[in-house]
Parts: sequence; C-alpha cells; structure tokens
Amino acid sequence: MTLEILAEQACFGGVQGVYAHQSTSTGTRMEFAVYRPPQAREGPVPVLYYLSGLTCSWENATVKAGAQRYAAETGLMLVLPDTSPRGEGVPDADSDDFGQGAGFYLDATQAPWSANYRMWSYIRDELPALVEGRFAVQDGARGIAGHSMGGHGALTLALANPGRYRSLSAFAPIVNPSEVPWGRKALAGYLGDNPELWRAHDASALVEAKGWRGDILIDQGDADPFLGGNLQPQRFAAACKAAGVSLTLRMQPGYDHSYYFVASFIGEHVAWHSERLG
Amino acid sequence: MTLEILAEQACFGGVQGVYAHQSTSTGTRMEFAVYRPPQAREGPVPVLYYLSGLTCSWENATVKAGAQRYAAETGLMLVLPDTSPRGEGVPDADSDDFGQGAGFYLDATQAPWSANYRMWSYIRDELPALVEGRFAVQDGARGIAGHSMGGHGALTLALANPGRYRSLSAFAPIVNPSEVPWGRKALAGYLGDNPELWRAHDASALVEAKGWRGDILIDQGDADPFLGGNLQPQRFAAACKAAGVSLTLRMQPGYDHSYYFVASFIGEHVAWHSERLG
Repeated sequence: MTLEILAEQACFGGVQGVYAHQSTSTGTRMEFAVYRPPQAREGPVPVLYYLSGLTCSWENATVKAGAQRYAAETGLMLVLPDTSPRGEGVPDADSDDFGQGAGFYLDATQAPWSANYRMWSYIRDELPALVEGRFAVQDGARGIAGHSMGGHGALTLALANPGRYRSLSAFAPIVNPSEVPWGRKALAGYLGDNPELWRAHDASALVEAKGWRGDILIDQGDADPFLGGNLQPQRFAAACKAAGVSLTLRMQPGYDHSYYFVASFIGEHVAWHSERLG
Repeated sequence: MTLEILAEQACFGGVQGVYAHQSTSTGTRMEFAVYRPPQAREGPVPVLYYLSGLTCSWENATVKAGAQRYAAETGLMLVLPDTSPRGEGVPDADSDDFGQGAGFYLDATQAPWSANYRMWSYIRDELPALVEGRFAVQDGARGIAGHSMGGHGALTLALANPGRYRSLSAFAPIVNPSEVPWGRKALAGYLGDNPELWRAHDASALVEAKGWRGDILIDQGDADPFLGGNLQPQRFAAACKAAGVSLTLRMQPGYDHSYYFVASFIGEHVAWHSERLG
C-alpha cells in the first residue's frame, strides 16, 4: 500500500503527519492525520482513533482540539480520518448533513452512494491495517472516540465489533440516529427506508442488543444547540442502564458543540483511553 | 466605546470571546479575541497580549495555539488582536507580506497606508484602554508576546515603551527587520526610504538603544524555513548581549514555523508571563 506523505511536522516532541492513499473501500483518494508521540520512537504505543463530525475533515480536530499535548504526555498515537469520501467523481448532496463531509461511518447500500460511501469498512478494517502496518502499535491496544457524527461512529463501530476497540468515549455524540433528524436522513439515504436495517448503526439499539464489556465516557455541553434535538444523550444513558453497561455521562455546564468544548475535555478523554489501553 | 460581541463560548472553565469595534486608530472596524480564565470571575487578573504573524487574524492563535488551557491554569487573560486594518476601503497589496494581514505593528507615514495602518497606536493605546476598561485587569500586570511578525510587534512595542509591558516573549520573531527582506519591504513601504526612521521599529536597534529591565524569552525552531533569512535570532542575541539584557533564546530541534511549533511551547510562555505578572 502506497502512503503519500503530505506533511510531517514536529509537535510536542513527536510528529504530526498528514497522509494520503488510494482507498480500496471508498475507491477514492483518502487523507488522514496521525500524531506519533515521542514514545513511538522507542517502540509500539497504544492508538486512539478520533472520528470527526459533520462538515469536518481530519484537519479540524488535528489543528483545533489540542490533543497532541496529552497524547505526548501519555504516549498515545492519534489517528484522525476524514468523514467521507471526497472528489469530483463522488456523489454529493447540497447539504451539510448528507453526502461529502457526512459519511456517517457506515457502508451505504443505496445508489448512488453505495459505490463510495463505505466509511464503516474504511475505518474498521482498511485504515487500521494501513496505519498499524506502517507505525508500530501495541497489540490490541486500540481505542476509539469521536465528536457528534464522529461520536456516533465511535459508539457504533465499537459496540458492533466486540474485541476490536478496547476503550470508548465520545463528545456530544448522536446516540439514537433512528429517532432524530440528522440520523433518519442519513440512515434512510444511505441504507434505505427499512428502519430494521438502521438498528445496526444506532448506538442505543446496539448497546441494548450487544452490551459492552468495558465502560464508556461521554461529555456533553448543556448549552449545545443540538442537545434536545439531534443528540439527546439520555436516550443512550437509558439504553446503557437497561443493558447493564457502565456509562459516565457528564453534562458540562455552559459548553456548546464547538471545538472549544472538545479542547476543554479532550485531555480527560486521552487519559481515559490511556488508562484502559496502557 | 461600543463593543460588539461576535461570540462568547465556554472554554476550559472560562470564556472565549470575539469582539468588534470601530477603531479610532485605524478608522476601520476591528475584530479581536479575548480569553477570560475562570479566575476572572473572582476579580482582576493579569493580561497577555498575543500578536500574530503575516496573513493571520485573531483567529489563528485563538483556535490553533491551545493557549486557553494554560491561561485557565494560571489565571491569565489573553488578548489576541488582528494583524492589520481590513475592509474594502482599506489600501491593500497583492502580497502576503504587505498590506492587509501584514500591518507590521507600526504607524505608517506613507500614503496611501498612513490613513489606516496605525497598528502601533492601536495595540499600544486604543486596544488596552478598550479591553482593560471592559474586563478587569490587575493594575500594570500586562505582558506581550507574538509569533513571527507578531514577535517583531511584541519586541518593539515592549522595548520602545518602558513600563508599559512587564513581561516579554516571542516565537520565531523578526528581530532585525531593517536588514531582512520582509522587514525592509514593510519599513520602506510604510515609513519611507530613510533607514534611520526604521530603527524605532527594529528590535535589535531598540534593545541596544534602550535596554530592557526584565528578561526576554524567545523560542525558535531550527527547521523553520525562514530562520536563516527573515528571522536570524542570533542578531537579536548579539544586541541583547551588547546591551546587557538577559535573553533566553531556545533553539528547538526539528520545529518549523507553524502553529504546531507555537502550540508545543506556548504553555511555557504562558508560565513565563504568569510568573512575571502574578
């Protein structure tokens, strides 16, 4: 697999890299960022995948979240993928919440999306094989986190694939997409109109069906404009309770949906993952 | 003075604000950012002005430097101004290093720049009066820092105005603009062709002429592509030595000119200022 190096820059004693490759999952050129902490020079380190939200690429969290400092302190590698396939030949919608920048971390089954919108396979299988082949990762020490749509991706990928991710957290995630506007639009558009097929990509349905052997951390700002509509974390809290899964849901007073919110708490998420992956 | 609130967002327990006002110095609408740490709710705090480099606005450092975390830890207010006047009626050059985004922190004397390009007066007088009237700052507890062209601004504003800033640091600053391409272009364009008039805006000339009663911190990446041309910090080191001024110049191995470099060391700069302002 050929990996094109777009940039490698010194950052907190480690290396902030940006890479591109031709993806077999999406059929497109995909870019992603990797932060390698200083400890990676000495040997394998744990890795945290961070999935971004609607309209974002790898760049938002890489430049705005300030996660590198904490990753350098704890010796965690960060992998920050894009949120969808992109490019002129890729179907798109004139929309912030569907199409390019809004892949929803699933494999689309509906035309014309099914040819390229295969972010589930990309994040779960192709990207780890690529990254963890290129950069040394401790065996099995893989966690996943995300923000908003990326929180949905982190929760569903982890819950649906037991054993693949050892640690799990999210910032202001979409937790019950089958029942909220962003999710219903995406699930219907990418997977078709049968709601039964949506359950495999609904974190609240998944945790009730499959449980989770670890614990889960979610931070949510109480001034987030999407809280009462597209997010509603209490739905996931109820599902975790019903399933006997340990969830730490922290309502953060005054915080909104922005990267100032993510930056304020990402240090605690990095620590959460490091403790469970170390 | 009317201050327009463009945004106020929770960040590390404090408030990240963006504001706009009609500037009497520049004759334009100016935007700036202020981070108020949690300690500012209890009473006056010290303040650090951070000046950005070529092509930047208040936004780059505000979203990329990650300074808020450290400011929240140490109880420091951050003020992040724009780098020039802007707008349709403001003269501009088709250039990254002159005109809008490149005000060089001086009061231009040459037409057509002299009408609006008055960043010296703006940063030194107007903005502190505005900010420190609106948000409670500890008496005299004012420091200044900057990056690249903003490092030039921080050094020259502090050195030329004894007593106005109590602490001083810079990231990869332009230290001897009279002798390097970026500086010669800006000084000639804004101040005219007489190099004698440039000395008041040349940090190396200023420190030799006026000294500095405190100490100065400069971080510089040794992989910075501008190091040997436009930056050359050893020129300032020599001038400080000649003037008996205490300079800590740290060459940081592998770091370039980007915000990954600034982010990696801004915690130590915030601590440096806090120790001297607290």
